[in-house]
Amino acid sequence: MNRTIRLHPIGIIETPYTETTKMPIQGCFENKVIGCCRLFSKYEKGLNGLDEFSHAILIYQFHKSTEEAVESEPFLENKVHGIFSIRSPNRPNRIGMSIVKIKEIKENRLYFTEVDMLDGTPLLDIKPLIKHFDNRENVISGWLDKQFEGGNIPENTILK
Amino acid sequence: MNRTIRLHPIGIIETPYTETTKMPIQGCFENKVIGCCRLFSKYEKGLNGLDEFSHAILIYQFHKSTEEAVESEPFLENKVHGIFSIRSPNRPNRIGMSIVKIKEIKENRLYFTEVDMLDGTPLLDIKPLIKHFDNRENVISGWLDKQFEGGNIPENTILK
Repeated sequence: MNRTIRLHPIGIIETPYTETTKMPIQGCFENKVIGCCRLFSKYEKGLNGLDEFSHAILIYQFHKSTEEAVESEPFLENKVHGIFSIRSPNRPNRIGMSIVKIKEIKENRLYFTEVDMLDGTPLLDIKPLIKHFDNRENVISGWLDKQFEGGNIPENTILK
Repeated sequence: MNRTIRLHPIGIIETPYTETTKMPIQGCFENKVIGCCRLFSKYEKGLNGLDEFSHAILIYQFHKSTEEAVESEPFLENKVHGIFSIRSPNRPNRIGMSIVKIKEIKENRLYFTEVDMLDGTPLLDIKPLIKHFDNRENVISGWLDKQFEGGNIPENTILK
């Protein structure tokens, strides 16, 4: 069952971040920067109706990651965790997922805020965020809950 | 930039659903059925620490989808939408994403509820659900909001 799955980008994500410096570790920590999903023309029709939604889920490739580690240190803690309990880009298959805020859709371009990916990122899928499907109550977020205790925002949410 | 991205499954998702009959369209509509991510042994260490979290995000391939449509009808409405504004499995790259509730982790097996995928699904990634990153307020869910108005649960959330 260790077969190869072949994917093709549906477009490219354009952002002001050409390196990780000053990039937020997650989009929710910086809401002014604007990014754009520029879809290849054959996928343009796929955006129809997405402008009725406030948020989208972008699925993409961490194309600058060179390592596919099974354990690693997250940005917010100097401690090794299993790769599936952190959101590090250096993960098997190097798939990234971000929730972004939709700003405008023009032809094959989806403009958004809450940007946390590098310029030139290959885009694999866009899904609408649907609160009736995706909202969960009583979420326990493991080692991160203590970092955000009492509304605290830890240092290092913007990369140096 | 239309290069091929090659992925390899990190494991297989085992569920009681060998066909879509009786399967929920999203995991949140059925919370008793148990599924299991059976990771290939070289990825087992990647699960370390995930048992501290209540929920995980599974990313996988819709391996039974044969079509990669750009427009389609969703399960809940007989109307054509752009594929990126619905959650249909018949989408470019056929990537699925589900939020599931973690029940137990034993060696290379992650047991979970809120199952909405077919048995034998190739698993591509597991990410922890982190409320400090993934929670969004004031989400507008387009054509779906009217279906769920006033706490209504539409018919067809379980497939026939």
